[in-house]
Amino acid sequence: MPLSVDIRVRYAETDQMGVVHHSVYFVWFEHLRTEYFRKMGMPYAELEQGGTFFPVLESGCRYKEGARYDGEVKVTGWIREPAGARVRIDYRAEQESRVFVEGFTVHARTDAAGRPGRIPPDLVAKLRAEASPAGEGPSISL
Amino acid sequence: MPLSVDIRVRYAETDQMGVVHHSVYFVWFEHLRTEYFRKMGMPYAELEQGGTFFPVLESGCRYKEGARYDGEVKVTGWIREPAGARVRIDYRAEQESRVFVEGFTVHARTDAAGRPGRIPPDLVAKLRAEASPAGEGPSISL
Amino acid sequence: MPLSVDIRVRYAETDQMGVVHHSVYFVWFEHLRTEYFRKMGMPYAELEQGGTFFPVLESGCRYKEGARYDGEVKVTGWIREPAGARVRIDYRAEQESRVFVEGFTVHARTDAAGRPGRIPPDLVAKLRAEASPAGEGPSISL
Amino acid sequence: MPLSVDIRVRYAETDQMGVVHHSVYFVWFEHLRTEYFRKMGMPYAELEQGGTFFPVLESGCRYKEGARYDGEVKVTGWIREPAGARVRIDYRAEQESRVFVEGFTVHARTDAAGRPGRIPPDLVAKLRAEASPAGEGPSISL
Repeated sequence: MPLSVDIRVRYAETDQMGVVHHSVYFVWFEHLRTEYFRKMGMPYAELEQGGTFFPVLESGCRYKEGARYDGEVKVTGWIREPAGARVRIDYRAEQESRVFVEGFTVHARTDAAGRPGRIPPDLVAKLRAEASPAGEGPSISL
Repeated sequence: MPLSVDIRVRYAETDQMGVVHHSVYFVWFEHLRTEYFRKMGMPYAELEQGGTFFPVLESGCRYKEGARYDGEVKVTGWIREPAGARVRIDYRAEQESRVFVEGFTVHARTDAAGRPGRIPPDLVAKLRAEASPAGEGPSISL
Repeated sequence: MPLSVDIRVRYAETDQMGVVHHSVYFVWFEHLRTEYFRKMGMPYAELEQGGTFFPVLESGCRYKEGARYDGEVKVTGWIREPAGARVRIDYRAEQESRVFVEGFTVHARTDAAGRPGRIPPDLVAKLRAEASPAGEGPSISL
Repeated sequence: MPLSVDIRVRYAETDQMGVVHHSVYFVWFEHLRTEYFRKMGMPYAELEQGGTFFPVLESGCRYKEGARYDGEVKVTGWIREPAGARVRIDYRAEQESRVFVEGFTVHARTDAAGRPGRIPPDLVAKLRAEASPAGEGPSISL
């Protein structure tokens, strides 16, 4: 099931073009991930304390329109079925009917030292239960 | 011809994983673009004042290893032949023989109001003169 | 009357010391100001469109403890009685009974070109109606 | 002896007011500190690895004019005589004859767990040798 969070655009997130800087959407995607992990009953802070990290392997974004200061942006994420040690999440950021960006991140499971490893089975089960099928939500390729 | 800049990693650019936050590489790519435009004799600040903007249409990055605080990172960019109103730049960030990330951005030419338009012929000529052929430098697809 | 907002700490806001980077509190203070202006019936985005800006003249912060990733931080602001073209706001960021920082900003009213000018009388009236007396809330000097 | 570094203003550091966001100067001050510690023969990354941290206890800044994208800003720092476990550094950011801001930070020495402790004698000696007397450089109080 996709999850959405509402994010109020901060002044510091704009640049002199008058819109949100293009790097900020990745920070918002991460904000959404934090809420997603919490919703699945495995807060990311606790995962890290237990030695499970999900660093970003790939990131991508397609920009359609710039979000503006003080707008309330809805960021939605779609977790995809985990494949081996990897999991992909797709995102959309929008306000009412205007889509600002669509993007994605791919994560690998590592330990605290950065060594790759399998996603623990209970996490795989939770990710699978939450995963959206291909075809639902955005899924850009770049 | 590719261009490189050396960037000293700032403390504020790290996160609690002890490495540079994944969104920061896009800021470094932009830093490199600024130097690239200056080298081509068309500082981006002056282009904007003249009504020529190159907002980001697409961005992508593949992460191999995390850069660390106080490291001196070499960021290199390869401009590609402009196609219509678009231009792509590929990037690599590395330190000595270790590659941290490879990425790219695609830009469209717009005016101050965000309306798309052709890249002025003199800029096209400068971009073409600087462009690296496909096959030189990284060129990831995601 | 003071105003509070709850801010969820983002991963990107931490640094390799494992706590929120000290510059981030100023971004949170600004987030609180945005909500404060909205509460007073004069959204800052609209003020700017009408030619009224409140750039920061002075900022200060005293750090007691570092906020951590995923914590829900309560940021509270106390507007002080405007004096001439200036207005001061004091802040506290805390979680349950732990105070992370106390800080302040002083703002001047300018126009879009940065020229100082008087705060329009209707805004002065709204700021006065909202102002907290000296002695209420933090008020650090550095 | 004061130390200066030249910092090229990044696009991402501006906000929609068209100038550098007020929180960014603290990141530049930190950049200067990194170079200062290196100059003193004790790179901050190595200090941390050895268990010596200097987290920020207080920060302050007075803003005179906004730095602009692509400007080359000279940031200068003046270390003050350490007092007990604390050390203060004053800063100025300027371009040619225009001063953008003056600020300061106060640091305490702690260990990795955040426990305060004395500054090791060899570091005190290095800081003292580098310290500028009161009266040299800016020294704002807020």
